[in-house]
Amino acid sequence: MADTHDLGERSTQTLDAALGFEITEMGEELARGRFEVTDVVRQPFGPVHGGAYAAMAEALASATTTRAVEPEGNIAFGQSNHTSFLRPVTRGTVHAEARCRHRGRTSSVWEVEFTDDEGRLCALSRVTLAVRPRPR
Amino acid sequence: MADTHDLGERSTQTLDAALGFEITEMGEELARGRFEVTDVVRQPFGPVHGGAYAAMAEALASATTTRAVEPEGNIAFGQSNHTSFLRPVTRGTVHAEARCRHRGRTSSVWEVEFTDDEGRLCALSRVTLAVRPRPR
Amino acid sequence: MADTHDLGERSTQTLDAALGFEITEMGEELARGRFEVTDVVRQPFGPVHGGAYAAMAEALASATTTRAVEPEGNIAFGQSNHTSFLRPVTRGTVHAEARCRHRGRTSSVWEVEFTDDEGRLCALSRVTLAVRPRPR
Amino acid sequence: MADTHDLGERSTQTLDAALGFEITEMGEELARGRFEVTDVVRQPFGPVHGGAYAAMAEALASATTTRAVEPEGNIAFGQSNHTSFLRPVTRGTVHAEARCRHRGRTSSVWEVEFTDDEGRLCALSRVTLAVRPRPR
Repeated sequence: MADTHDLGERSTQTLDAALGFEITEMGEELARGRFEVTDVVRQPFGPVHGGAYAAMAEALASATTTRAVEPEGNIAFGQSNHTSFLRPVTRGTVHAEARCRHRGRTSSVWEVEFTDDEGRLCALSRVTLAVRPRPR
Repeated sequence: MADTHDLGERSTQTLDAALGFEITEMGEELARGRFEVTDVVRQPFGPVHGGAYAAMAEALASATTTRAVEPEGNIAFGQSNHTSFLRPVTRGTVHAEARCRHRGRTSSVWEVEFTDDEGRLCALSRVTLAVRPRPR
Repeated sequence: MADTHDLGERSTQTLDAALGFEITEMGEELARGRFEVTDVVRQPFGPVHGGAYAAMAEALASATTTRAVEPEGNIAFGQSNHTSFLRPVTRGTVHAEARCRHRGRTSSVWEVEFTDDEGRLCALSRVTLAVRPRPR
Repeated sequence: MADTHDLGERSTQTLDAALGFEITEMGEELARGRFEVTDVVRQPFGPVHGGAYAAMAEALASATTTRAVEPEGNIAFGQSNHTSFLRPVTRGTVHAEARCRHRGRTSSVWEVEFTDDEGRLCALSRVTLAVRPRPR
């Protein structure tokens, strides 16, 4: 089975691939990713679409939590995603850094910060995932 | 100038087009949209990616508010998007219905419900937009 | 044992009592409550404190879900509360109406609308509760 | 006129006073507060009421932003409060630390962390405030 976290190899097969998301680091406490500001992540008026930040936050939190809970026979799935947009980005790369703020037996909470190439904070996200026994 | 809300014509040029979003109704109080469950809206494990719901909510609220405030010389941009995922969708069409819950002079709040082909509630979103004078 | 949902009788013993919250209806799908705009629910500048709306939403969703899941040997506890403030209220009564939008085996999602005495929408809240087996 | 930020002196006159909130530090970038776990902040089942965390986050963000924007002739008011509950607290003191994550011309975003006496993270809040010219 292909590594489900290797998003780069699933080229046109998921939203993450369609939007050019790249996950560059996947620790249990910290994960990082990025995407280029190309047309596929833009809204009609030019800046990055709010949905791109939300999707990247979801991707990072979900992939990382899944990797952490799978060995215990569990699965993780998103329950809630709250993203605030602080500064529009129109070019370059969007950088995401996700930190695990809570890992309980049945849920996991991540906070994700997005910065532009100048290191300015552009968006904030809080993602809550449910952790449950894998259905058999 | 092309109608900026006619997302269908901007085929590969925005996130909305890349994910196959279709806006089918755009009133000041109610808007509707939908997207097919194809690979580009999936997460690695098969169901619709949480980011797809968030992005569609953002698209509906943003396009509709923009159309409402432009004649007054204003612009609208997303401030916050909070999406809760209630039931995974793996096939068919996701249907979105957005209702304007508040339209003030400087902000607009929409709530969006997502249902599957059987009419079951799959996700809920609340989107807050800022309304500001158009920069000259 | 006193009925734990009869908040009115626990006069000075909980936050709900301290802030004068009254729950007037408790169905599985719909609950209603209200509070008077007295000093104890005000912020320093006069209008109702944002925390009062959030607390009332939490109280309604929590009491109602608890009543629903207790007979099954479960407990409910709040996971997340997102309240948006749309219109300041400075006098009269704040009316809350809570609707259950999702009741799964392990979580429950409520949306709460707040109106003033003229029926104008003042705040919106979404509350997510976790449902778990009662610890023995 | 009394200093509107001196919440301690307004003993029984606001929600903050009714719940025993204390603001101990008020910088432009960082603010701190705390409250004792007495009955007035409890929910019916004993632990701290979710509304108490939400209210404290609102109080810290609002008082601090108001102090920052008043000299410029502006006012601040809460737009949105999203609080996640990670660990129940049943005794001792709840400590809140608020950080300003964004201060734009028309809005301000704060993130607030709540810890118990052992320093364990108990709740997270994100508060968005609108900044507007003071009405004359």
